[in-house]
Amino acid sequence: MAHTVPSDLPLTRASVLAAHELIKPHIHLTPVQTNTTLSTLASTPQDPSALIGTPWEGATPAHPRISLFFKCENFQRIGAFKARGAFHALTRLIERLGIEEMRRKGVVTHSSGNHAQALALAARTFGVPAHIVMPSISTPSKIVGTQAQGAHVHFSGSTSEEREKVVESVVAQTGAVLVPPYDHEDIILGQGTMALEFTSQVEDILAQDKARGVREGKVGLDAVIAPCGGGGMLSGNAITLHGTGVRVFGAEPSFEGADDARRGVAAGARIPSVKTLTIADGLRTPLSPLTYSVISDPTYVHGLYAVTEKNIRDAMRLVLERMKCFVEPSAVVGLATVLYNEEFRRLVAREGGEGWNIGVVFSGGNTTIEAITSIFADVDAKKAGRQEGTVGKDGAREVENVAG
Amino acid sequence: MAHTVPSDLPLTRASVLAAHELIKPHIHLTPVQTNTTLSTLASTPQDPSALIGTPWEGATPAHPRISLFFKCENFQRIGAFKARGAFHALTRLIERLGIEEMRRKGVVTHSSGNHAQALALAARTFGVPAHIVMPSISTPSKIVGTQAQGAHVHFSGSTSEEREKVVESVVAQTGAVLVPPYDHEDIILGQGTMALEFTSQVEDILAQDKARGVREGKVGLDAVIAPCGGGGMLSGNAITLHGTGVRVFGAEPSFEGADDARRGVAAGARIPSVKTLTIADGLRTPLSPLTYSVISDPTYVHGLYAVTEKNIRDAMRLVLERMKCFVEPSAVVGLATVLYNEEFRRLVAREGGEGWNIGVVFSGGNTTIEAITSIFADVDAKKAGRQEGTVGKDGAREVENVAG
Repeated sequence: MAHTVPSDLPLTRASVLAAHELIKPHIHLTPVQTNTTLSTLASTPQDPSALIGTPWEGATPAHPRISLFFKCENFQRIGAFKARGAFHALTRLIERLGIEEMRRKGVVTHSSGNHAQALALAARTFGVPAHIVMPSISTPSKIVGTQAQGAHVHFSGSTSEEREKVVESVVAQTGAVLVPPYDHEDIILGQGTMALEFTSQVEDILAQDKARGVREGKVGLDAVIAPCGGGGMLSGNAITLHGTGVRVFGAEPSFEGADDARRGVAAGARIPSVKTLTIADGLRTPLSPLTYSVISDPTYVHGLYAVTEKNIRDAMRLVLERMKCFVEPSAVVGLATVLYNEEFRRLVAREGGEGWNIGVVFSGGNTTIEAITSIFADVDAKKAGRQEGTVGKDGAREVENVAG
Repeated sequence: MAHTVPSDLPLTRASVLAAHELIKPHIHLTPVQTNTTLSTLASTPQDPSALIGTPWEGATPAHPRISLFFKCENFQRIGAFKARGAFHALTRLIERLGIEEMRRKGVVTHSSGNHAQALALAARTFGVPAHIVMPSISTPSKIVGTQAQGAHVHFSGSTSEEREKVVESVVAQTGAVLVPPYDHEDIILGQGTMALEFTSQVEDILAQDKARGVREGKVGLDAVIAPCGGGGMLSGNAITLHGTGVRVFGAEPSFEGADDARRGVAAGARIPSVKTLTIADGLRTPLSPLTYSVISDPTYVHGLYAVTEKNIRDAMRLVLERMKCFVEPSAVVGLATVLYNEEFRRLVAREGGEGWNIGVVFSGGNTTIEAITSIFADVDAKKAGRQEGTVGKDGAREVENVAG
């Protein structure tokens, strides 16, 4: 990609270990939580009515045995895992170009979400100027929040072409280095550090539980399931866990074709653009060629699954009300898959033997009370619509999901 | 109180230590969290406009130095600290009357909130029948939730007289022992176990931070601030911390006189009844004679403070959106006091010297997305009203608060 500094690191677990050493002083070791209610729910067959209109209609719902472990990146700095990749990318730039040059040049990105905040934080930490290009229609709180991190905000139109143009002009004026949100090796390796912590934290929990006599069986994770938007975090975790025996799965929303990774891998060709307004707004982006190359390799990512908007809302309610954990909608697609995607549940029932320890990534918690209110108010309105006999859009979504 | 078995334990730290040994196998050691943003906010003077209409209008806002530590009892079993008292009360009954007799008699309570769920859980754990008397107008989800814990639900009218009558009849039929929500020594001692964990967890955090070179100064808490409804938890913590040098403060909503503890202690006489619809619905109850006797003793509780409904909402938004921690409105009155009660902030600025480490109790997390939506929707409606030039009820509340 133009304006980036290409990485010189191979996409290997060794590179992730090195990345972890670099960023450890700057990131939080986020907690891993367990929840008996949710593990019990995951280990209980779905109601047969949940399978109506799916390929499994009339079949006996799967009965997997699942213990859940949650990596709470909503407690990460800036409220999402993106801090990992941003600190790694910037630290590596400083190593290679020198701090003086980076302070002269600065960094730029065209994301307006969690990556922008993460890059702004990393840049401020090292006294490097950060330029964030965001559409002029962005919500004022997002603009103010980014400026509060000390970043320079540049406004653009909403299309990617218009944004790219503003990035060009920032680069022309300042010499800033582009740090993309996911399409870069250093970003991917940074996000992958999460899986290093996750596996070792779960091993600690299992060892403690065994010592206390409250758990027996396996000593570590059998699988990790993570949300997939641009695919930086999923491919990072897959690189970290490659060859370790821990399976890696990706989860996406199905709404309006947001499951581009799943569909692309199934068809054997990357889907280069996506246009969706899924409530999981962090997952509206397509894979890049780089993340596709990792995610489409079945020795790295063992499967991709999609969930409906209703699945996401149901999972989100459980995480908020039962786990008391504040997450954004994108964060719960992995849990939604484990609880509601019958294809995934049948896989675990079939291959899981005595049961699987599944690590679920909660990717972030950057949402607002108003956003949550509107997500759930929508449903109430649509429910009312259905009760009056109309066929809501929701029905169509659910059919779309099971096609996968 | 009729139908209870009187305790034979003195209200001392030694009794709390013994209580902790009894209940430890049944409760979670809830985490203590810190948050840089909130500590920074607490250490920043309020905007002078926040003092308009208060006794400090025109004065320079206080500039206390505060490090915050949060005891997250929203992660406790059943989602609130009440599990501590319920397990203690029942374990003690079993010790004294024997498990066979308790299984024959059962337990009964007339709370329909967190205490009912806690008692139902404790009773189920020991195979003891639990009878919960709740108003027939209770929300269906609360009724179903209590039944799901295996408890027998008995319906009554809404007044305390009507409830008491149903309790009478349950006791007459079953011989059940009444376990009240706060007016009992064993309950108070159970809730006080929280302060044992809190002080030692904060000492660990401070020692680790010191070892890592990221913090200097004190080695423990200077103060604990906790919500006060019936006063069981506040008095329990005060008993635990009595004589340790850690100051204890109580926080209440001011709306419609919900600050009965503060007003009663100021006037030198307990206020026996309260009628308020504060959004902090766990704090609508008055002190009992027993909890008043502890809380009105300044060597136990060093001060009581009240906060407005707006203060509670503002604090709740920070805890959800910034800390990513899902709490009920009652849980945040302590934080609201630290952030917005100028009288408390002036005390810390005056007496705090190099600054205070303040432990804030998050008492529980049992609320719903719908309840939060309605709490914040109310505000939006009232804000709209104010913008149109009407004087909302909110204004009156804020004036009421500063009288404290």
